[in-house]
Amino acid sequence: MHIIRFRTADNTLYTGCDYDGTKATVLEGDVYTGVIDTGRRLDVAKIETPVVPGAIFCIGLNYRGHATETGMDLPRYPVVFMKNPGAVTPHNSEIVIPFSCLETPEVDYEAELGVVIKRSAKHVSEADALDYVLGYTCANDISARRWQKHAGGGQWVRGKSFDTFCPLGPVLVTPDELSDPQNLAIESVLNGQTMQQSNTRDMIFSVAQLIAFLSQSTTLAPGTLILTGTPEGVGFARKPPVYLMPKDHLQTRIQKIGTLENRVTAEETDEK
Amino acid sequence: MHIIRFRTADNTLYTGCDYDGTKATVLEGDVYTGVIDTGRRLDVAKIETPVVPGAIFCIGLNYRGHATETGMDLPRYPVVFMKNPGAVTPHNSEIVIPFSCLETPEVDYEAELGVVIKRSAKHVSEADALDYVLGYTCANDISARRWQKHAGGGQWVRGKSFDTFCPLGPVLVTPDELSDPQNLAIESVLNGQTMQQSNTRDMIFSVAQLIAFLSQSTTLAPGTLILTGTPEGVGFARKPPVYLMPKDHLQTRIQKIGTLENRVTAEETDEK
Repeated sequence: MHIIRFRTADNTLYTGCDYDGTKATVLEGDVYTGVIDTGRRLDVAKIETPVVPGAIFCIGLNYRGHATETGMDLPRYPVVFMKNPGAVTPHNSEIVIPFSCLETPEVDYEAELGVVIKRSAKHVSEADALDYVLGYTCANDISARRWQKHAGGGQWVRGKSFDTFCPLGPVLVTPDELSDPQNLAIESVLNGQTMQQSNTRDMIFSVAQLIAFLSQSTTLAPGTLILTGTPEGVGFARKPPVYLMPKDHLQTRIQKIGTLENRVTAEETDEK
Repeated sequence: MHIIRFRTADNTLYTGCDYDGTKATVLEGDVYTGVIDTGRRLDVAKIETPVVPGAIFCIGLNYRGHATETGMDLPRYPVVFMKNPGAVTPHNSEIVIPFSCLETPEVDYEAELGVVIKRSAKHVSEADALDYVLGYTCANDISARRWQKHAGGGQWVRGKSFDTFCPLGPVLVTPDELSDPQNLAIESVLNGQTMQQSNTRDMIFSVAQLIAFLSQSTTLAPGTLILTGTPEGVGFARKPPVYLMPKDHLQTRIQKIGTLENRVTAEETDEK
């Protein structure tokens, strides 16, 4: 099933499936415990994020190609950080460049496979891990590089947690339609130019290994989102570097899932 | 007001105040928008955490004395990381040492002043910041040091996010009863011995400065918890080092707030 959350013109929020770009079929119930296909088709006015994550665990340096381009050693254990869950923003929404990042560009894209946990997971084995997955979605781990590297004593959270720094969606694809998360083409396209192009088979730690690792003595609640790392081709590692600028158009594409599209804008003065 | 959340013997959950160790007065309504004192006194069977945080931002190296004992330079900007919000555990509950930390002790205490955000905060100035505070509580940023330092590529989240690694409570003290968060004695006491003893005036970045810093281009939602750093005297910096062991008794004390008490236990085999 390809699940979305959407609003109709009167702003009512629905869960749906079979979105064709105009209409979606309404699902009743809760995606974590079970939904019923009502067959009722409604016009979609706005796409929301497919879930509202309670926590966002992120994995750094999890593609061999990206670890190489950053000049860092391959990690022995998953590199784990978090993003503020309030940073999520849906398909077709704007990625907002913070004031503090406007004068000297530093905001970068990182296309990532997002994994949503379905049921409470603790001490899950690698063999059982994918049974705990609600679904897969496109995500982008937007990152302010100076903040990430220089403004937080080496901890990455601050530079990764600005509002709109976690585009997510549009659809959540359930495991019955996506049995192998380790063989998916993944790419980011900026203003029509392919910037990242890889496959999830290049991950150092697989989705199953990450769930096993994160769930050691730790309960991953339903709705926990895991961003599984980004492949090579990020902006800061390019020569010359490429950073997101106002009016840019960013696409995050993953095979069998779809394309997450976002425009970039500058934070407006009156927000301050 | 000194706010608690508690359960009665029939497991009903209440918000309350004026807890005398046996009974509390029931509050109706929502602490974020306004509560009414019912005057009704009930027997408290179990204390819960005073809030259920939606996100936990943590500040590293924020006391001059602690930065010195770790041998690290004083930070130019707040060092920001996060803990899994599921790591919270209430007063009188057990801090559970994970399997992976049992063979070689590594689990450490960090007494911290916890600050809970009351209303949506974005681009808040230092001068206005304390107007956004719902209240203050005792917290302990329990940390598995090997995980923190060696198992996550230098990112601290994994070693800070095990279940029960964020004791919190018992009370939340509202700002009308605690106007100056920068002049509070803070200490941790392990098995009756004082291990950390300082004052929040030793913070490098004040509570107001931290809220201003974190809210730059970032919405701090109601219920966001900020752990404001720990003073000197943590276990790993001692000679010889001191780590939490099963049956230990840990107290986290903050002047004008109270004492958060937790026993330490080892994770049981059948949980795995």
